Amino acid sequence: MITSPHNAQLKTIRRLQRKRERERSGLAVAEGEDLVAAAAAAGFEPEVLLTAGVDVEPALLDEVSALGSGTRVVGVYRQRWSEPGGELSVYLHGVRDPGNVGTVIRCAHALCDGPVILDPGCADPWSPKAVRASMGSAFARPPARARFEELEGSLLALDQRAERELSEVEVGAPVVLCLGSEREGLPAELLERVAMRARIRVRAGGPESINVAMAAAIALYECTRTATRMADRA
Amino acid sequence: MITSPHNAQLKTIRRLQRKRERERSGLAVAEGEDLVAAAAAAGFEPEVLLTAGVDVEPALLDEVSALGSGTRVVGVYRQRWSEPGGELSVYLHGVRDPGNVGTVIRCAHALCDGPVILDPGCADPWSPKAVRASMGSAFARPPARARFEELEGSLLALDQRAERELSEVEVGAPVVLCLGSEREGLPAELLERVAMRARIRVRAGGPESINVAMAAAIALYECTRTATRMADRA
Repeated sequence: MITSPHNAQLKTIRRLQRKRERERSGLAVAEGEDLVAAAAAAGFEPEVLLTAGVDVEPALLDEVSALGSGTRVVGVYRQRWSEPGGELSVYLHGVRDPGNVGTVIRCAHALCDGPVILDPGCADPWSPKAVRASMGSAFARPPARARFEELEGSLLALDQRAERELSEVEVGAPVVLCLGSEREGLPAELLERVAMRARIRVRAGGPESINVAMAAAIALYECTRTATRMADRA
Repeated sequence: MITSPHNAQLKTIRRLQRKRERERSGLAVAEGEDLVAAAAAAGFEPEVLLTAGVDVEPALLDEVSALGSGTRVVGVYRQRWSEPGGELSVYLHGVRDPGNVGTVIRCAHALCDGPVILDPGCADPWSPKAVRASMGSAFARPPARARFEELEGSLLALDQRAERELSEVEVGAPVVLCLGSEREGLPAELLERVAMRARIRVRAGGPESINVAMAAAIALYECTRTATRMADRA
């Protein structure tokens, strides 16, 4: 039973709250029974696994938790990264909120067969907040990394200023759905190079923009529907 | 210029971080320029409006902020509540996460004409986290309150165990889309009484559940599409 805050494993967990340390070590932390179970289900072997009251004094585990008190179990895992691919995948550009990055990872896991591809300006998907927002999907379907220029397939940019609605679009697989942050959208040089730009139909008089995770959910759902429609015709 | 932490306006803002105090007073706090602008655009008159460096020392404003440092402006407003109504609205049951409640309020503002109706077991939509997640839509389209028994119109329950897919459903307006929390779903006594249960099509092998805000986004989008399809036929 660990009883000292100076224990090496606790120090490791504490250090992994910092992005630089996660990048240096290639490790990530999962807090809570659900995430630890998700990691195990995806075949991740913990480098460290501490259960409150079994391996460590509960107060000491709380103290290294990034997400608050009452943490019953914490695991440390080696990060995995997917290669871009799949019939339908998502590319995020400049999405700096870790909750949004994690939520899109969750959503893509539910709705499409490809990974979430992150440009270097996105939040770290292996931060505690992002891993929690992914509800464990970061383990089941690890994210990929790429710059826009490296993407392959039909690029479909979500752009609320586009004339065409997403439901009218038909693009051949593999499709990469491209989204920017809610505030900034996608950069002009990216929009110039995509195969298609389309918007989600929203009410007149409503908000001018929608949250990137919401937009990803709706757009992925619409793309799977389009794919079904195209398959029905073929 | 306020220079004392014991100032009455600062005390008011600090107290409004507590749900009980928000309920007692009927007030809510908006932090940051975007939310304060959204409140003004919706015709809310601030009871208190403090700008860092103008009305109050910046460090003192930071200290009463619920959402972290660097807050440049904080407004206090009288809460407003909508009546249930509209051709398409959302009912949330037992959604205790304020971020999810706020995100659904945002989403409904973008996609449907009715308010988000909250059962008493939901998180307070006027908490700082919920107001921020709503991106100001809590002001533009205030939430409503009702128990399930009080709902009117065609009740459409989102239930991932349902046999029918949402895209196959046609129900006459007004429609109330009913969602529970991701973990618990909707209670059995509610599911027994709705006009229709339907699920969102997700990939086999993906997660068994999806976040309630994601589900609401997709389901609202699908319902607006269904309404368009029915109108085209009429």
